[in-house]
Amino acid sequence: MIETLISDKNPLLKEVRRLAAGGASGEDRLVLAEGPRLLDEAVRSGIAIHAVILAESAPEIAAVGTARIVRVLDGLFNKLASTESPQWVLSLIRLPEWTPEDLLRGTPLVVVLDGIQDPGNAGAILRTAEAFGASGAVFLKGTVSPSNPKCLRASAGSAFRLPIVNEIPAGLSLYAADPRAKLSVAEARFESPCGIVIGGEGRGVRPELAARATRLKIPTVQVESLNAAVAAGILLYEARRQRSS
Amino acid sequence: MIETLISDKNPLLKEVRRLAAGGASGEDRLVLAEGPRLLDEAVRSGIAIHAVILAESAPEIAAVGTARIVRVLDGLFNKLASTESPQWVLSLIRLPEWTPEDLLRGTPLVVVLDGIQDPGNAGAILRTAEAFGASGAVFLKGTVSPSNPKCLRASAGSAFRLPIVNEIPAGLSLYAADPRAKLSVAEARFESPCGIVIGGEGRGVRPELAARATRLKIPTVQVESLNAAVAAGILLYEARRQRSS
Repeated sequence: MIETLISDKNPLLKEVRRLAAGGASGEDRLVLAEGPRLLDEAVRSGIAIHAVILAESAPEIAAVGTARIVRVLDGLFNKLASTESPQWVLSLIRLPEWTPEDLLRGTPLVVVLDGIQDPGNAGAILRTAEAFGASGAVFLKGTVSPSNPKCLRASAGSAFRLPIVNEIPAGLSLYAADPRAKLSVAEARFESPCGIVIGGEGRGVRPELAARATRLKIPTVQVESLNAAVAAGILLYEARRQRSS
Repeated sequence: MIETLISDKNPLLKEVRRLAAGGASGEDRLVLAEGPRLLDEAVRSGIAIHAVILAESAPEIAAVGTARIVRVLDGLFNKLASTESPQWVLSLIRLPEWTPEDLLRGTPLVVVLDGIQDPGNAGAILRTAEAFGASGAVFLKGTVSPSNPKCLRASAGSAFRLPIVNEIPAGLSLYAADPRAKLSVAEARFESPCGIVIGGEGRGVRPELAARATRLKIPTVQVESLNAAVAAGILLYEARRQRSS
């Protein structure tokens, strides 16, 4: 059954607005996924979908598990989303809960985000990590929340499937990109369980973590730093290349 | 001399708002650069700065060549920028004019953007291209404008320095990333003059262009496509790696 909600004071819609504004998930671990692609990814990933909010002008959709399905007027709908073009569907989704041990599958390959504040970059890093077979991601303090709607969207669904925790599991060799390093990425050895640390733009990797890591240079022509997601992509690509050959 | 502008009907401020809203540059080739970092990059790149607009609360700045410097009230300033946090300075900058021949320096390495609509991705691709020593970029029809303020910002100044045109110069071997290709990126040969084509997410490279290109696979474990800027980064990294060794 599809309900129609007309008041923006409805508790469900208030919760959506709170999450769209970057509010933290509560104990219910609900996050806001914007657009049809992300809903498809959530269904495909088999995670719990709490509610689906459709714009009045949205097409009909089939039942989504036991999710509550509601329709709201277009004018109200457009005020709910965090992105400029939210398309016609918003979903409240329950992110899985993970422990650091969940990252230690196979030969672990973990990406560590240290102070990545741009949600688009953080999401792109998750997407890239999953693409290259990483076993999980660590969002250290000072990094945007993985439940940020823009991060979820940029992750293209990887945030639903990749184990994410906020501390580095024990037993990993750490590598960090550093333009002043002597060793180049192609010379590093990523075969053993390892963590790839990506620092925030400007500030870089925090010193106490950099001191524990082997620093690697991505050989560029210009000395300026690369975009964080691009740097992560190159390190993860090299790690995957070495492990496959 | 610093002027103080108080009317939002002032022609200079109207032009800023038009560009912030994604309006195309006119024959004057003026673009809007947001924030102090991008102004620094413009100065460092030696390109013409037409005007600098400071928020009332902004620090004093030194003269910037012959640029007109104006101050506006904070409330007015905050309505001028396209980004949520424009910091305290906006600049009107004149982008250099380029011809396809400008991309044919040394052994050309050109990145071709085909339908990249996200300005953040387009800017990150320019930044990455400059970092890896590309000789220029081609923005084909259907791609966001390189003068989009969010693209300029994501380029971290590379849009001021890298030659950018809108047609592919003759004489380049073309390569395009394609998840279904047989040849992998590491097996390709990037030594001769070449163009790396990056398609828009979803649609990919247009068929008539894909037919002229050697298709290359980035060996991923999961996920059908990578973020466009990450894919560009990996191809450019490989091209640079081969040319350096």
